[in-house]
Amino acid sequence: MDVTQLEQKLKEHGQEHLLQFWPSLSEEERSRLLHELNDINMPEVIEFFRHTIASANDEEEKLDEHLQPIPPELHGAITRTSPELLRHYEHLAMEQIGQGRVAALLLAGGQGTRLGVDYPKGMFNVGCPSGKTLYQLQAERLVRLQQLTEERTGLKGAIPWYIMTSEHTKEPTQEFFRRHDFFGLKEENLVVFEQGMLPCFSLDGKIILETKSHVAKAPDGNGGLYRALRDRRILDDMERRQIQYIHVYCVDNILVKMADPHFMGFCLSKGADCAAKVVEKAFPTEAVGVVCKVHGHYQVVEYSEITLPTAQKRNADGRLTFSAGNICNHFFTTQFLRKVISGQEGMLQHHIAKKKISHVDSTGKICKPDKPNGIKMEKFVFDVFQFAKNFVVWEVLREDEFSPLKNGDQSGDKDTPTTARLALYSLHQRQVLAAGGVFVDDEGIRLPLIPSTPTVAGPEAISKNETNNNEIQKTCSRREEPLICEISPLVSYAGEGLEELVKGKKFRPPLLLSSPSESNGVIGN
Amino acid sequence: MDVTQLEQKLKEHGQEHLLQFWPSLSEEERSRLLHELNDINMPEVIEFFRHTIASANDEEEKLDEHLQPIPPELHGAITRTSPELLRHYEHLAMEQIGQGRVAALLLAGGQGTRLGVDYPKGMFNVGCPSGKTLYQLQAERLVRLQQLTEERTGLKGAIPWYIMTSEHTKEPTQEFFRRHDFFGLKEENLVVFEQGMLPCFSLDGKIILETKSHVAKAPDGNGGLYRALRDRRILDDMERRQIQYIHVYCVDNILVKMADPHFMGFCLSKGADCAAKVVEKAFPTEAVGVVCKVHGHYQVVEYSEITLPTAQKRNADGRLTFSAGNICNHFFTTQFLRKVISGQEGMLQHHIAKKKISHVDSTGKICKPDKPNGIKMEKFVFDVFQFAKNFVVWEVLREDEFSPLKNGDQSGDKDTPTTARLALYSLHQRQVLAAGGVFVDDEGIRLPLIPSTPTVAGPEAISKNETNNNEIQKTCSRREEPLICEISPLVSYAGEGLEELVKGKKFRPPLLLSSPSESNGVIGN
Repeated sequence: MDVTQLEQKLKEHGQEHLLQFWPSLSEEERSRLLHELNDINMPEVIEFFRHTIASANDEEEKLDEHLQPIPPELHGAITRTSPELLRHYEHLAMEQIGQGRVAALLLAGGQGTRLGVDYPKGMFNVGCPSGKTLYQLQAERLVRLQQLTEERTGLKGAIPWYIMTSEHTKEPTQEFFRRHDFFGLKEENLVVFEQGMLPCFSLDGKIILETKSHVAKAPDGNGGLYRALRDRRILDDMERRQIQYIHVYCVDNILVKMADPHFMGFCLSKGADCAAKVVEKAFPTEAVGVVCKVHGHYQVVEYSEITLPTAQKRNADGRLTFSAGNICNHFFTTQFLRKVISGQEGMLQHHIAKKKISHVDSTGKICKPDKPNGIKMEKFVFDVFQFAKNFVVWEVLREDEFSPLKNGDQSGDKDTPTTARLALYSLHQRQVLAAGGVFVDDEGIRLPLIPSTPTVAGPEAISKNETNNNEIQKTCSRREEPLICEISPLVSYAGEGLEELVKGKKFRPPLLLSSPSESNGVIGN
Repeated sequence: MDVTQLEQKLKEHGQEHLLQFWPSLSEEERSRLLHELNDINMPEVIEFFRHTIASANDEEEKLDEHLQPIPPELHGAITRTSPELLRHYEHLAMEQIGQGRVAALLLAGGQGTRLGVDYPKGMFNVGCPSGKTLYQLQAERLVRLQQLTEERTGLKGAIPWYIMTSEHTKEPTQEFFRRHDFFGLKEENLVVFEQGMLPCFSLDGKIILETKSHVAKAPDGNGGLYRALRDRRILDDMERRQIQYIHVYCVDNILVKMADPHFMGFCLSKGADCAAKVVEKAFPTEAVGVVCKVHGHYQVVEYSEITLPTAQKRNADGRLTFSAGNICNHFFTTQFLRKVISGQEGMLQHHIAKKKISHVDSTGKICKPDKPNGIKMEKFVFDVFQFAKNFVVWEVLREDEFSPLKNGDQSGDKDTPTTARLALYSLHQRQVLAAGGVFVDDEGIRLPLIPSTPTVAGPEAISKNETNNNEIQKTCSRREEPLICEISPLVSYAGEGLEELVKGKKFRPPLLLSSPSESNGVIGN
């Protein structure tokens, strides 16, 4: 399409300002802009914008009164499930994993902006003794889960790993995995693909020019997954591999249990086509979306949509009525996804994210706004819950499975590298203790489960058989620092198989349990 | 007693080292040391030390297996109590308050060391708009509760306020209240008293010399309360005032509801002689003591005493079995306290707190150890639970009633001035919303309940009747900062009586609701 035709088309959509600098552009800039604008499906994005605003406007209000919690029979919880049943779930899931019917799908389109890094979050090293990045921890969990499945079922199935990136994160992600030999995964089982981008709009509905010859664009949200599954032919690839069940999750949770056999098995036992793993909401105003039923359909209600009375509503047992906190851990069948991408996806509304978007002023000067000046349109991965025929929820323990990495340490905020690291240490310490290991201080005295603070005056952990005053110094131990304990995913996926390594042993922190295949070996005992 | 007799006595107790520098001391130093040593009840403190070590040694081990949770019928919870019943509890409590039978007792012996200040914690200003200190917030809550009681019952009873300080905090505390005209309380209703001190021991049982002529001493723990009630004749004072019910609490909880009518009323309705207010433990390894039953007696088991399996134990409903998290909020009858101080107090074990205690070496040089080198002996206020004939527990919501101030902001730790401040803002914001007030941004657009983070792409709070694109900027509002909202205790004790002030009103944060009697008045609307 040449510039006059384009100009005509833009006029039809009230976007002719996109060519306002045309006369002053160089040949190169012109062809680039022309190319960019031709790539944009103008009628579509304008329609997106209209719908987004319209839907945004009738959203609110109605929600509260129509909210219903997840029916108990569809709301499983690890804390209310017997060990036997959990083992059954594991078995169900591993049967499928062993037959190569399970895949993991990582949503990694975001950049580490808030984290303060200019590379993909997955490449971030939170500072554990092993120095492993989020990508490596996740890759190794898949490796271990595959082994574990073979040990338990004798079936040798791979768990293909799909990673959805964006314009900014695709290249570095691919390069990173290549540089590290895919952390022990087979190259063909790692599929990195890219989500779509959408133009950013000004608050009055004009597409924003970032420079005189370049349109401001942003990824279309983690719900861009469905378009990408179709346009990048990812679902075709899944079907070709005969994948039937997919675990979708976000990159930033350091504790994520990929293809979690408990979660997958629970979903399989319920014959679910779509499911969410959740944690119990801690208090009414916690900043977490809750999975619930609205007008008979399941959805995640963002905390900004809920009013106080709804957020504070409690059941007779004192628990919050809307307690299913969404942690972006989802289960889908490929069948369900096929239905979604062939039609339903188009019914998903974009949501508004007001952002500061740098743009050119009428003179062509680039301006960096200090308050939101435009909107990005984003779809949410969980908005497909409404299409589920058999939706279930699986509740897990926050301290075991959820510790997101969002902010830099300097922020003094929560969800930092430090909180993520400590959550991992705490989980692994509990796994060692549960397997019969013991942590001791420099004098060989047992360390308490929880670090004490200097002003706590509680009785100390005292080892028995020592009543003599002169020995008191040997009988008291207190630690004021969190205990450093890391278990390589290659050693244990979720605490299993640790007995032979730790039972009856004493460990002086820091403890790093690695597999023989890893260079660093075992430190600390 | 002269020095030779003293030397003899010290020898008997293996403490003759206390006089090792005698020859080199000046007359003044000698008389001071002599005086100090004569003040110490040597046989008693040596016995304390022996018992403490012995008990510490047989403590452990046995605990876990003998642990039992609080029976459900004795474990009330605000989340499981109907509004009608809560009003009934309030009424019961106010009846007693109105007749002057209720007192508040503050445990404020600790210094703000970890907080990084050299004055009593109660004098700390957490940085709210009003600039009020913890002492002032608490004093004003009492003032308001007295008014409220009169409004509701027509009874004009005072709530005497007892403050237990230590050697270090008594003077500044008294001076502080005097300087501020007791924040509207009657001087005769404020009773500041001092808890006892005990010598610090080296790990091998020797009393530590801090300087050549001065013994290292420390307060005898918040459980020193009982001795102080007797020795300072505080219980006599209570009985003289015909106090029957006492609410005991710690200084560091910014949300503390002094003489809380719900808690007091629940205890009254159960005919309790001793009770604890608790919050639900959030996760198994949370650093909080739990109230439970051991060998048929109630006690608080410190988290350092619990093993992992016990900490992780859960009921069929998925809740932690040992979930009654102690927040140092206790209810006692004067009758109960009378029994305690006439005999039972002596049966309370001291607990060991290993500390870094600066001391003189053999040459008289003062050494500051970098690791614990001695112990302080402390009693715990909650150790009297074992003597209760009718013990009950009242569970409240953490977000409404518990946010302790322990560390400085720079610590980047939890329980800081910032977390305390934000907890207060959050509570007061919810009270304003519940009373029909609304918070708006600079453009008059309603602010969401919970601050959004820049990367959250949730639908925004959109006000209805605005579907036109040009108006979208008026329909979106997001705040990334916590909302600043403070309500003076003189205006409302716990959210009551706010309707006439806020209903239907729009407030632009920061909001400070003060009573006309206060200089600063109302900011923000």
